[in-house]
Amino acid sequence: MDDDTDRTDVAAPEAEREEEDAYVLNRQAVARIIHAVDMDDRARLTEELEPLHPADIADLLEQSTAFDRQRIIALYGDEFDGDILSELEDGIREEVIGLLNPEVLADAVRELESDDVVDLVEDLEDHQQEAILEVLEDSDRVAVRQSLTYPEYSAGRLMQREVVMAPEHWNVGEAIDYLRNQDELPDQFYHIILVDPRLRPVGNVTLGKLMASRREVLLKSLVEEIFHTIPVTQDEGDVAYAFNQYHLISAPVVDENDRLIGVITIDDAMAVMDEEHEEDLMRLAGVGESGINDRVYETTKARFPWLAVNLVTAIFASLVIAQFEATIAQFVALAVLMPIVASMGGNAGTQSLTVSVRAIATKDLTGSNVWRVIWREVLVGLINGLVFALVMGVIGVLWFGGPQLGYVIAAAMVINLVVAGLAGTVIPVMLERVGVDPALASGAFVTTVTDVVGFFAFLGLAALVLL
Amino acid sequence: MDDDTDRTDVAAPEAEREEEDAYVLNRQAVARIIHAVDMDDRARLTEELEPLHPADIADLLEQSTAFDRQRIIALYGDEFDGDILSELEDGIREEVIGLLNPEVLADAVRELESDDVVDLVEDLEDHQQEAILEVLEDSDRVAVRQSLTYPEYSAGRLMQREVVMAPEHWNVGEAIDYLRNQDELPDQFYHIILVDPRLRPVGNVTLGKLMASRREVLLKSLVEEIFHTIPVTQDEGDVAYAFNQYHLISAPVVDENDRLIGVITIDDAMAVMDEEHEEDLMRLAGVGESGINDRVYETTKARFPWLAVNLVTAIFASLVIAQFEATIAQFVALAVLMPIVASMGGNAGTQSLTVSVRAIATKDLTGSNVWRVIWREVLVGLINGLVFALVMGVIGVLWFGGPQLGYVIAAAMVINLVVAGLAGTVIPVMLERVGVDPALASGAFVTTVTDVVGFFAFLGLAALVLL
Repeated sequence: MDDDTDRTDVAAPEAEREEEDAYVLNRQAVARIIHAVDMDDRARLTEELEPLHPADIADLLEQSTAFDRQRIIALYGDEFDGDILSELEDGIREEVIGLLNPEVLADAVRELESDDVVDLVEDLEDHQQEAILEVLEDSDRVAVRQSLTYPEYSAGRLMQREVVMAPEHWNVGEAIDYLRNQDELPDQFYHIILVDPRLRPVGNVTLGKLMASRREVLLKSLVEEIFHTIPVTQDEGDVAYAFNQYHLISAPVVDENDRLIGVITIDDAMAVMDEEHEEDLMRLAGVGESGINDRVYETTKARFPWLAVNLVTAIFASLVIAQFEATIAQFVALAVLMPIVASMGGNAGTQSLTVSVRAIATKDLTGSNVWRVIWREVLVGLINGLVFALVMGVIGVLWFGGPQLGYVIAAAMVINLVVAGLAGTVIPVMLERVGVDPALASGAFVTTVTDVVGFFAFLGLAALVLL
Repeated sequence: MDDDTDRTDVAAPEAEREEEDAYVLNRQAVARIIHAVDMDDRARLTEELEPLHPADIADLLEQSTAFDRQRIIALYGDEFDGDILSELEDGIREEVIGLLNPEVLADAVRELESDDVVDLVEDLEDHQQEAILEVLEDSDRVAVRQSLTYPEYSAGRLMQREVVMAPEHWNVGEAIDYLRNQDELPDQFYHIILVDPRLRPVGNVTLGKLMASRREVLLKSLVEEIFHTIPVTQDEGDVAYAFNQYHLISAPVVDENDRLIGVITIDDAMAVMDEEHEEDLMRLAGVGESGINDRVYETTKARFPWLAVNLVTAIFASLVIAQFEATIAQFVALAVLMPIVASMGGNAGTQSLTVSVRAIATKDLTGSNVWRVIWREVLVGLINGLVFALVMGVIGVLWFGGPQLGYVIAAAMVINLVVAGLAGTVIPVMLERVGVDPALASGAFVTTVTDVVGFFAFLGLAALVLL
């Protein structure tokens, strides 16, 4: 808790300035841009947009109304950059592609590297995908089509095909001469990948080490200690995990024969990690795949199923309550107090659940410590349960007179918080074992358990004790 | 929804193998390691641990019991690597530092780069911090102490001080000769930073471009299009945001006079992004700062305050219910149905809230679109509210006979889902405006609103209609 406070205080004095530094697209800038569009002032608009990174222009388009988006694109049109398309999120991207005139679109797409084109077209509708593939040069089109043959969300979709490699027996001088004689090198590369005669990668040499070493030094003697190859079919989430766990900067991608076919760099891995985090967060909250820029219809549709699941579980809990109608009719105080027990259980369950889901995602909760973690969660639930039982017991007595209602709510509280700790850990672990993403489904299960147990324990005990 | 299914299916056939690829510390490996420790077999333990990355050994220690941890360290002792300490999480790190004998600890720490030492010592207790600073060489100790003068969670703590720079007027030949004559270059560097005569960074040249260009080409003509400097006091979360938004690989850090004083690389930014995500997730769930490896006491303590807040809000909701005791006594069906309305509101509120908190974190929800987003959330709440009102209305009629209860629950459902959309967006936005992390506090506020409104609307309407 002290940490939190520190953290907030640190930034406070300069918060304003830092906000500006970290994010150029502030409210004033947006207002100036929209004003330029209102004035139909192309020169002014271009002047405003020119210093912006394509990612910022993409954000601008995402944050604008459909009407402003259309006007910005109509006015900015010819200057439209391929990288802006890459940075747009799916829904808006399709809309923008539809708005661009075909020649501007063709120019924009031809500027992009082949892996960016893959990223661009993979989520498009078929007719838009074809339209974009058509404008590519033949060699690029072949490369893009081949990448699209790899499974979605696999390393094959993420990698770039341009690699810089050298035979493992070369020395520094040979490598430098080779690099300096290349007509074209990839825009961004950080390592030379050493390969054996069968094109299997055996090590990475950083360009820094290459520059710093004498010409006769063997490349082999300069390889990085950490070397990690990625199978082309590996899930992109696991790729991002490996980059973060092993501090990789770039890693060679290999086919089923362990032959080098591409390279993934950390900036792509970082983008994947960001997406995976967003997905976990949204799944935990039952929001589905919808974002802040989706239309009302799409958002409503994405959220509906989770609310429907919740309705079913809530009705299930109500059926439990219905069993005790007679008791409630006699002691209305039960109706007043019962949501407290269910709510505390739901909260404690969500706490355990979130910690478990995160630990499963970071591979910190594994077969070797699962029982210990479950036991710990149960213990935490028990201790917090006892403390809150005491508090609620006292409140129950003071509020409703007799001690018996106090005993009942106290006991129900302990039971429900223990069950919450248990369910919050066991449910995500079991879902993971059977191959279901624990972030996706755990929430509904856990709150069903805590609602049902909470109402049943409280009302059941009340029926026993009070009647 | 379709996307989810695809995503799971893709990985399924190879899931087993990929798991192994992405994570070497599987259950079998852990079992073999513990067996070696049981046998007191140092050679075997070293053989098992040798191929592991320090990050994996750190994971092993984190997943072990305190007892096993002690035995592993006692047996592995002399081989203990400084990088393992860097990779450990805070609580376990302090424990391990206490377990290492002072000479092993000194050796381990001396191996580390100064920025890793900063990362290592900043969270330690004062006496442990001093013990580690003492064993450093004088120059390193000065560097570490200076880094510690920057605010916690600032760019100054994150940067490395070793930079590779060149005057802006140099050509490629001069830069290459300079690099090749350096005795020592940083382990990892990807750019040469061009500086003006006052040491202000003006551009980045990638090593790849340097290698590929003729000797007489001016460095100035090779600078990267995207160039972003980071103020030393900037919050590390904003640093990570800039790396992800602008696809930076490394970025110069400048002091208040815009002079170059260090460099941050993307691997550090990626680690920060991961921590920030974890923090958001944990704060949204009200888990505080505790992780899966904390002790029962710490975990209980970290979770207690959020449960206490929840208890207060739950009691507040109960007080609302208590106002309608007379109505409930007459129509016990109200007690059976009322949790459904509250639960649906809570869920819908959490959905809106999560989307808003994430959009604020990614700077996608800003002053320029906030009203539109609020309006959209209200509309989504209204539409889903109407659908579920219909469903619950029908259920209410079928379950309890008369149509009136159906009307009441239907109306309450619409009201609560609209309020949920409103509260789920307005509350995090307002908290952010007043400088409170919306992830931290929004949940409690939003569910209080949906509970209170849910119970009040349902019971209040019931009192009006049924009595």
